[in-house]
Amino acid sequence: MTTSRFLLASQRSGGSLNSIIKRAIVSGNFNFPLINQHQSQTMATSAKRQLITLESMNPNMIKMEYAVRGPLVIRAAEIEKELKSGAKKPFESVIRANIGDCHAMGQPYITFLRDVLALVVDPSNFNESKYPEDAKQRARTILDGCGGGSVGSYSDSAGIECIRRHAAEYIQNRDGGIPARYEDIYLCAGASQSIKAVMNLLNVKIDGLNPGIMVPIPQYPLYSATIAEYGMSQIEYYLDESNKWSLDIPELERSLAEIKGKCKPRAMVVINPGNPTGQVLTKDNIQKIIKFAYDNSLFIFADEVYQDNIYDKDSKFHSFKKVLMEMGEPYNKMEMASFMSCSKGYMGECGIRGGYCELINLDPEVRAMFQKSLSAQLCPTTIGQAAIDCVVNPPKPGEPSYEQFIKEKTTVLQSLKDRAELVSTTLNSFEGFSCNPVMGAMYAFPQFKLPPKAIEAAKKEGKAADVFYAFRLLEATGICIVAGSGFGQRPGTYHFRTTILPQTDLLKEMLQKFQIFHKQFMAEFK
Amino acid sequence: MTTSRFLLASQRSGGSLNSIIKRAIVSGNFNFPLINQHQSQTMATSAKRQLITLESMNPNMIKMEYAVRGPLVIRAAEIEKELKSGAKKPFESVIRANIGDCHAMGQPYITFLRDVLALVVDPSNFNESKYPEDAKQRARTILDGCGGGSVGSYSDSAGIECIRRHAAEYIQNRDGGIPARYEDIYLCAGASQSIKAVMNLLNVKIDGLNPGIMVPIPQYPLYSATIAEYGMSQIEYYLDESNKWSLDIPELERSLAEIKGKCKPRAMVVINPGNPTGQVLTKDNIQKIIKFAYDNSLFIFADEVYQDNIYDKDSKFHSFKKVLMEMGEPYNKMEMASFMSCSKGYMGECGIRGGYCELINLDPEVRAMFQKSLSAQLCPTTIGQAAIDCVVNPPKPGEPSYEQFIKEKTTVLQSLKDRAELVSTTLNSFEGFSCNPVMGAMYAFPQFKLPPKAIEAAKKEGKAADVFYAFRLLEATGICIVAGSGFGQRPGTYHFRTTILPQTDLLKEMLQKFQIFHKQFMAEFK
Repeated sequence: MTTSRFLLASQRSGGSLNSIIKRAIVSGNFNFPLINQHQSQTMATSAKRQLITLESMNPNMIKMEYAVRGPLVIRAAEIEKELKSGAKKPFESVIRANIGDCHAMGQPYITFLRDVLALVVDPSNFNESKYPEDAKQRARTILDGCGGGSVGSYSDSAGIECIRRHAAEYIQNRDGGIPARYEDIYLCAGASQSIKAVMNLLNVKIDGLNPGIMVPIPQYPLYSATIAEYGMSQIEYYLDESNKWSLDIPELERSLAEIKGKCKPRAMVVINPGNPTGQVLTKDNIQKIIKFAYDNSLFIFADEVYQDNIYDKDSKFHSFKKVLMEMGEPYNKMEMASFMSCSKGYMGECGIRGGYCELINLDPEVRAMFQKSLSAQLCPTTIGQAAIDCVVNPPKPGEPSYEQFIKEKTTVLQSLKDRAELVSTTLNSFEGFSCNPVMGAMYAFPQFKLPPKAIEAAKKEGKAADVFYAFRLLEATGICIVAGSGFGQRPGTYHFRTTILPQTDLLKEMLQKFQIFHKQFMAEFK
Repeated sequence: MTTSRFLLASQRSGGSLNSIIKRAIVSGNFNFPLINQHQSQTMATSAKRQLITLESMNPNMIKMEYAVRGPLVIRAAEIEKELKSGAKKPFESVIRANIGDCHAMGQPYITFLRDVLALVVDPSNFNESKYPEDAKQRARTILDGCGGGSVGSYSDSAGIECIRRHAAEYIQNRDGGIPARYEDIYLCAGASQSIKAVMNLLNVKIDGLNPGIMVPIPQYPLYSATIAEYGMSQIEYYLDESNKWSLDIPELERSLAEIKGKCKPRAMVVINPGNPTGQVLTKDNIQKIIKFAYDNSLFIFADEVYQDNIYDKDSKFHSFKKVLMEMGEPYNKMEMASFMSCSKGYMGECGIRGGYCELINLDPEVRAMFQKSLSAQLCPTTIGQAAIDCVVNPPKPGEPSYEQFIKEKTTVLQSLKDRAELVSTTLNSFEGFSCNPVMGAMYAFPQFKLPPKAIEAAKKEGKAADVFYAFRLLEATGICIVAGSGFGQRPGTYHFRTTILPQTDLLKEMLQKFQIFHKQFMAEFK
């Protein structure tokens, strides 16, 4: 485990939440307290009336981390409040480059999607001429799939059948005709929900060994957070920064060899296009990964939520499922899950919470248990389901919404492409920075060198050096990024993740401010 | 554990999912397979290529059950498909009385709520005169609370601040001015999500003992499902059927005494108004429960999602928080959680997934960890948040939507009240039935006697007798109820849960069909 840890105030403090969190940012390993007899006896007597304390709560919830919404972001929210109440700062607003939150950064919504939502939530809009016929037809189909014709009804736990069918058709078309079955599609409230649900399947000790999940480093911290929450073991493989963050098979083998006998490897996570790294994997690389997974009996989590976000002109999105199916026997019988979301792509509907998971080659009995486990959560939001329907069943040429839809979609994707290039080019011009091209997704993850004096100053504040840098940047410019230690990085290297999402003018301003800050920072710690 | 269990096909079967599920309905205890060395070696060799099997998956996911969406409901869905494809049955449609799904049963939506949703998803509607000004003002406030003014942005993990503030004001007014803080409010995608999240806090062994959660029997199976999923221990206390399903303190004490030394009791769940039992607790009963929880160091889960559904003229909703606060020291320092949802009440917006949880007197450090654990799930659906905003901040007298809102709300609640009486009165007229009054919530849970021959016939089919009865009812009439064993009941007694939700004409027809079926059933097994 290379990521930094929340520091627990080891003694109960009377301090505010903020002060606790402020004290909580440290680098290095932290051994959270395990419950021992002494502590729990203490709880049962002196502290009897506080029933849930750090000592008597689920330690996995203490251990888990989610840097994308961590202390830096909490501080950013505080600064926003300070600005609102008239505080003077060297900047006028916070730029939230920490999270892939498209609309918050000014990306407009796709009209067709919102038309369909306005129709399903308020059927009186079927009488309004401003809503085009194709949106009405989509909305009608969705409502026909809802109990009582209302999105206020629970859907099946796996989602509304017609939307699952549309998703299967979408996948089949995307993958050049390779069959997709609607029974394999599970709609969900954003990809995160189904990633957690599928990972839960694997949470069982085998031969007394803890289940292990291979995750890339750097990784999207949902994975480490879920692994920690479930008490599973994290097996870390490094992405090859020197080769555009691709996966290196000897490195995969090294990571497995290292944990041999310590846990039971059950699955591997691959994020393609990459988050936070922005790589797009080649078909050849994917084939090798699949072979590796096969040889090592690993279930594949293919996180493909950025499949529409490809900017590199020489790259193409290859779905894991398509590659695996084209490889033929025995690979085409492998169990895997692929995840998709309406939060990313060109839609950027993060708050609506829509997504799907395709689960292939699953044992039917296991599938029945999976479905049962979903049922206690009743159903994913029907509005999120309607949103993902628009993603998998967008306007077709000739339909009334088509022209506007294509224009909006192309504009968003072209602008993202331009910004992807702008960010990596600009960051590469900073002293000590090296940034791989942002081939896809929505982030840059540059490496940067820090002067020894800065590292020392960080240590004095009890912070990881990249966290120290990120806090300094935030306080000086209002720019909120996430330090590399939140995603994992090779020891001794420093990175951060920034989104490419601020709209072009703001992004240029941000990069300019960033450059000035960096120069000053380097001068200060020279 | 008194509830029935899914039977696992002990050998891998080539059968369809349906046949597996059909075989899976049994009564009595079932010991699910534990992983042993032999099995996992088998998996590693002969079955190597099926990576996840019943033997190598999380056994808690096998153990968990959710009868409200169990095999009976799966069969009901099959029957609906059979009817659609022209099959001849003794009925024309399935009546889904199994689940509290208001809109699916014909309850109309509340116009004001949908107006607000139509405005937040499509801001072009601010120009439409058909939407009243108060709905526009609510929608504007919500959008102002969203990043970039769009519900497509992620919100804070705890929810949009202005909505949390509205919820706190609502609670404070409801509780006669007892303060509520917005920081204690966590918005969620339906109450289920936050019930699971709060229960997760308690999942830690203390002195080597498994954490135990007290749940009522009968109970809403989300609780048993979550306890099973988390591998916690379920401590069952029986509700007092002879005293309108109230809580009997000696029975609470008995349940605790029985598990002494076997697990560590951490919390107790109380559902008020009751699901599936329909009781409304008296203030006196709640005070005694709070004292009991205090004396036994139990965190209280107050499931109060039916707080608007009170039909009994002599009953009133008393929130646990209000009673606890009015009891003064030391009770007013107790930690507890109260849950609310937009799925129930008069709104019935189940599919939208909105709700909140109020967490009081929590240790601030624990609260910080709780908040962190939510953050990996990013945020609850913003549309669900907008829906719960309408519930806690409805039109006020004098506002343009007020009259229509009050009319719709009153109509729904009056009709539910009429149906509550109709259902209990009618069921009480059936041979061998005894049904407590439906004082609140949306369900009746009658007890009924089964003739020995029916019990024998059920045994032959490998079914619990009440499940056998419910299947017979479904196949004969299309009425889908949930057998009492799905909620738990005293051994040797038989119950079922039916909703009171079919609209009046359909409900009358349903009860008539039910009566005819019951007479024939009793004659058949005389």
